[in-house]
Amino acid sequence: MHESAWERDEGAGPKLDGELRSAFGIREEIERRVRSGIWAPGERLTSERDLAEHFETTRVTLREALSMLESEGRLYREDRRGWFVAPPRLVYDPTERGTFDRTARAQGRVPVTRLLDFAVVPCAPRVSALLALPVGLPILRIRRQRFLDGRAVLYVEHHLQPDAFPGLETADLTGSMTEIYERDYGFSYGGMVFEITTVGLHPAAAEPLRMAVGSPGLLVTRAHDDRAGRRVDCDFEYWRHDAILVRVAA
Amino acid sequence: MHESAWERDEGAGPKLDGELRSAFGIREEIERRVRSGIWAPGERLTSERDLAEHFETTRVTLREALSMLESEGRLYREDRRGWFVAPPRLVYDPTERGTFDRTARAQGRVPVTRLLDFAVVPCAPRVSALLALPVGLPILRIRRQRFLDGRAVLYVEHHLQPDAFPGLETADLTGSMTEIYERDYGFSYGGMVFEITTVGLHPAAAEPLRMAVGSPGLLVTRAHDDRAGRRVDCDFEYWRHDAILVRVAA
Repeated sequence: MHESAWERDEGAGPKLDGELRSAFGIREEIERRVRSGIWAPGERLTSERDLAEHFETTRVTLREALSMLESEGRLYREDRRGWFVAPPRLVYDPTERGTFDRTARAQGRVPVTRLLDFAVVPCAPRVSALLALPVGLPILRIRRQRFLDGRAVLYVEHHLQPDAFPGLETADLTGSMTEIYERDYGFSYGGMVFEITTVGLHPAAAEPLRMAVGSPGLLVTRAHDDRAGRRVDCDFEYWRHDAILVRVAA
Repeated sequence: MHESAWERDEGAGPKLDGELRSAFGIREEIERRVRSGIWAPGERLTSERDLAEHFETTRVTLREALSMLESEGRLYREDRRGWFVAPPRLVYDPTERGTFDRTARAQGRVPVTRLLDFAVVPCAPRVSALLALPVGLPILRIRRQRFLDGRAVLYVEHHLQPDAFPGLETADLTGSMTEIYERDYGFSYGGMVFEITTVGLHPAAAEPLRMAVGSPGLLVTRAHDDRAGRRVDCDFEYWRHDAILVRVAA
């Protein structure tokens, strides 16, 4: 159950002029091969030259088709290495606590988390709005990079109330923050709110994701309250746009 | 409250080489002007030539900055007309019923819905997976185009159980489907599930959104059950990536 049945898109639609239909037709043929497993996740496609020959089309039209599949997250490109079949998206529920490791393993993926830094920083305006703290007040910021099967898929910043978690810097911050909160601080969450939007990746997010500045990303912002309704932390999760499928039952 | 405070992104990050910092610096300066209202939503920017001169940079670097802002949804481009400041995103909760009109009005926007067609079509595989119906079975499909302040922001397909809503074709299908269900059929929803993913727009979605095939979109897929837990309909909502901000409290 890695990939959602919902993601399949028949793409039947109005007639287009010759060139667009051609690129779209090639897109559909490549997608069919990926979907049916003829071309497997991680597999490298043959050269653009060979593909253009195979589909009896021009390099320009082929690239149009490949770019569509890239923006859909079916294929991805690596500098100088060519085109690859994208791994399945992680099906992810932002309303669950501490999901990354557990979710990834449940879906047969290998998760790894790397701590980038742990710092006390002045509260930024967007954090101030979420945590209801004055701009400039010192708060804790933890920055992490998360991988699936060796591929960087998530850059995440956690911003925490300064007083809520004393001594946090001595914990192992490569696992679930939620588990640390519960185990070391006897803390458990109450309500939460999340937001999802598309963003162009700014340098601080693009670099750990190994993408170009301005590449499309999905920003999932989460804020959590404790059981007394006090806002305690917020996360800014920058995902590769092609690495995640959000699913929530309500 | 059109725009989320959360969307603000300070973008402080690691140092970059000269050219990237320059494009990113210009991006930040333009974003600051948009955010503070010096440049208003809908406003057309001066020519790229003048902008490049103003920021004392090259056209290449300027375009890098403009493209970042486009992928973030701050600016958009119109063929031959130049660059414009994007209108605010609609803050949208997929767990609410019949939200488009009400949500838009509550946020000071003018919503319009256009019915594209109403048809009985063979059940497609992705619909079959959602409605638990055999592929090929005749089902109802309603396709609509929705506008905010005159701009096409949403292309949506509703797929319905064939027997649940007899005579639906005589209803006014430019309003809330949920209201029609409730008023004309005494029907009310039980649970629901939604999925969010990024897609490249296929031709059927790109054309009503007036975007190029393959442009980035946000696909929100929703499926609804009745109070007895029977799955009754599903929607495929293709949003302009820069027109929507999903927010859910859980």
